[in-house]
Amino acid sequence: MTRTTPMRPADSLTSMTEYVLPTHANVLGNVFGGQILAWVDLCAAICAQRHTGSSALTAGMDDISFEQPIKVGQVVRLTARVTAAFRSSIEILVDVEGEDAITGDRWHCLEAFVTFVAIDKDLKPIPVPPLVIETDAERALAQDAEARRAQRLARRKLPRLT
Amino acid sequence: MTRTTPMRPADSLTSMTEYVLPTHANVLGNVFGGQILAWVDLCAAICAQRHTGSSALTAGMDDISFEQPIKVGQVVRLTARVTAAFRSSIEILVDVEGEDAITGDRWHCLEAFVTFVAIDKDLKPIPVPPLVIETDAERALAQDAEARRAQRLARRKLPRLT
Amino acid sequence: MTRTTPMRPADSLTSMTEYVLPTHANVLGNVFGGQILAWVDLCAAICAQRHTGSSALTAGMDDISFEQPIKVGQVVRLTARVTAAFRSSIEILVDVEGEDAITGDRWHCLEAFVTFVAIDKDLKPIPVPPLVIETDAERALAQDAEARRAQRLARRKLPRLT
Amino acid sequence: MTRTTPMRPADSLTSMTEYVLPTHANVLGNVFGGQILAWVDLCAAICAQRHTGSSALTAGMDDISFEQPIKVGQVVRLTARVTAAFRSSIEILVDVEGEDAITGDRWHCLEAFVTFVAIDKDLKPIPVPPLVIETDAERALAQDAEARRAQRLARRKLPRLT
Amino acid sequence: MTRTTPMRPADSLTSMTEYVLPTHANVLGNVFGGQILAWVDLCAAICAQRHTGSSALTAGMDDISFEQPIKVGQVVRLTARVTAAFRSSIEILVDVEGEDAITGDRWHCLEAFVTFVAIDKDLKPIPVPPLVIETDAERALAQDAEARRAQRLARRKLPRLT
Amino acid sequence: MTRTTPMRPADSLTSMTEYVLPTHANVLGNVFGGQILAWVDLCAAICAQRHTGSSALTAGMDDISFEQPIKVGQVVRLTARVTAAFRSSIEILVDVEGEDAITGDRWHCLEAFVTFVAIDKDLKPIPVPPLVIETDAERALAQDAEARRAQRLARRKLPRLT
Repeated sequence: MTRTTPMRPADSLTSMTEYVLPTHANVLGNVFGGQILAWVDLCAAICAQRHTGSSALTAGMDDISFEQPIKVGQVVRLTARVTAAFRSSIEILVDVEGEDAITGDRWHCLEAFVTFVAIDKDLKPIPVPPLVIETDAERALAQDAEARRAQRLARRKLPRLT
Repeated sequence: MTRTTPMRPADSLTSMTEYVLPTHANVLGNVFGGQILAWVDLCAAICAQRHTGSSALTAGMDDISFEQPIKVGQVVRLTARVTAAFRSSIEILVDVEGEDAITGDRWHCLEAFVTFVAIDKDLKPIPVPPLVIETDAERALAQDAEARRAQRLARRKLPRLT
Repeated sequence: MTRTTPMRPADSLTSMTEYVLPTHANVLGNVFGGQILAWVDLCAAICAQRHTGSSALTAGMDDISFEQPIKVGQVVRLTARVTAAFRSSIEILVDVEGEDAITGDRWHCLEAFVTFVAIDKDLKPIPVPPLVIETDAERALAQDAEARRAQRLARRKLPRLT
Repeated sequence: MTRTTPMRPADSLTSMTEYVLPTHANVLGNVFGGQILAWVDLCAAICAQRHTGSSALTAGMDDISFEQPIKVGQVVRLTARVTAAFRSSIEILVDVEGEDAITGDRWHCLEAFVTFVAIDKDLKPIPVPPLVIETDAERALAQDAEARRAQRLARRKLPRLT
Repeated sequence: MTRTTPMRPADSLTSMTEYVLPTHANVLGNVFGGQILAWVDLCAAICAQRHTGSSALTAGMDDISFEQPIKVGQVVRLTARVTAAFRSSIEILVDVEGEDAITGDRWHCLEAFVTFVAIDKDLKPIPVPPLVIETDAERALAQDAEARRAQRLARRKLPRLT
Repeated sequence: MTRTTPMRPADSLTSMTEYVLPTHANVLGNVFGGQILAWVDLCAAICAQRHTGSSALTAGMDDISFEQPIKVGQVVRLTARVTAAFRSSIEILVDVEGEDAITGDRWHCLEAFVTFVAIDKDLKPIPVPPLVIETDAERALAQDAEARRAQRLARRKLPRLT
């Protein structure tokens, strides 16, 4: 039973809050970049399931850069929203902030476009529900989605590097 | 530097979203009750830090009952809000829902009052900022807080059971 | 095959010993209260399986208060014993102590009544074996169990708080 | 402050109970042998701290063989007892049983001699308290300890294998 | 003491082998994409430390796409090699393969360029040792590094997306 | 389909690299011995699967001694190679080194002979492929394997110790 009802970004908006424990950090007390990417993927995966109404596999992640570290005892805040729906894949923008819950300081850490493919129980791709755009911010993000998708497809055609 | 500015419940409202992995569940695929309580405490601890502007130790949890199980592959949603501020302790209500992100089903799982003591670096209790009540729902929760507190203090005076 | 043989508390008595690692603690080095509750539930769950001879779901936990913190490098000692058997549920008392294995110091941390429902493979409640009381301490605990149970049922009839 | 009071095996006897989660097991549902050895070391380390009153480093483990597997949802029971005290090291015997808490079945899985060196804060070896033997079983274990120790020292003098 | 000796890619080549446990996977039994990225970052971080002789923070990751899933019970193989050294940052290429250790099948899963900044104890950037290129494959990778770097810097100048 | 093709040690050689996180260590910052043994078993298990082409259960581990500790922030390097193939079991030698990836220091930590039994889906032992010896180092290791095996069998016939 594939979901076909159009969905708004607000219908699948996903927020996660993670408290940084010693096990997430290096000897200097900073969260590993890879740990943050693991949370980015998890947050986006829940968002993808909410939009598609099906299981979803991570297809890729656009380039990202870490702006400012987050330390043990601080908080990682993630927000994932669908920015574009293609045939059987969707693009999700995840925004990551650091927060010191004691001082109240907050800072931007990362933003990442993650793409997911909706799949059925045999792991075969299935169509995804269309995205209903309502706000200007949503429109701005959706507008460039085709260009970003074209870039991704172009890059995948490059010869393997190693 | 103890924070003294009055704080609204909205200032420290904390939401967490957890994806249930196999490691969180028993052989039947249900999340362990204790794992949910661990998330409840973590969510409330972030909320407590946001309100008090200091570290905070869990002082206790009122009785809770699990209404409906949550399974591997489903999502746990937690919301923590301050319901009352005493001298050096605060009361936080955590609400836990289950969600199947694929079907969109949601169900109530648990609610719990958790109390925290604000502490300084020497682990000594410090005053907590007063709570500013603005909505009727907030007022209803705060109104009974003194009664709940009296019950807690009474129970602690009972002889040890073992 | 439901177990019907009466069981003594000693038949299902469960002890757990946990060494506190950095991952269990906050920045101050104290175990998270929620981590302790996770161990309480696990210890009680093994005790419940030993008594009922079946799977068991956590139904609830009575109010608890943390008396003294336990730190990284110290040891958490838990003991769970069945205090009462109802129709398809049992009440288990879990006692938690801290220990510094190097100095030999020990201190009381927590006690908690946890209730479990015995279930079959279809997650349907099944009868639990009766409890055979032998010692005075067991009798004292069992005596008040009905009163505690009445309180729990009364609380569950209260309107939802949020 | 090195502890010098003689200690009985009963003073440091350590029991651990672990519930096997999916994360501890391979695809067939059996606990990894290495996971069991990790619990053996942890249980023996607590026992070593209780006897020596100091930190202790694992020095070695005598050969072991796994007799019968333990599966997800079953329980691992460990008991560690000091069997001999040398100058700055002690020998600890850890016994591991499997248990199905639902059926009540129990089976022997493993026994292992683990040796620890007592150390001070600069990681320097320090004397360990003598062991007071009281029962015949304790005497039998202690009697062969010198022979086992001689074997260990002889093996360490062999040329490196790789 | 900043390391200034030129280093060859072979000097810091890093291989990791990870066995996929249930806790790394979703309900379909596939490793989470984010878990793979966490291993990519860890493997590259060791490689970065080996080259720079200092601590290193993840600065960013170029876009990646997941080619084929890896399942529970299978093996993840990672190889990280330095492809270019800039002033205080280095570029590392991580190659990820899946392997079924039982059938012997292997498949390409991912390749990722990760950049790290070398830092001293005050988290200040420090110079990194130059890279000595010896083979044609190394030269090919190094040649395009400046172009990739220019792209990264250009992307960071774009207005924030959210 | 049991694999019968003879295999060389090089065909199943397995290397693992682990970064030591706070969660792997005691309060002094040293990796737990048991954690190292867990990695030894995992590394050898992959090696066993590569050689046998089947699942494999850990049968035992010969005595080991820890030569030098490894600390948080340092790296554990493991190499596993098949040293002998018997009827349905194989012997694997695992070598463990510590490394400080920043200073470049390396030191020997441990070597361990681990034995595995190859099993089919019903957990029944199956024949393992013969081992093809090619180098002198391989021959030296294989030569003494029968003697080590005889010792293991002899030890298993001793009366249980507890």
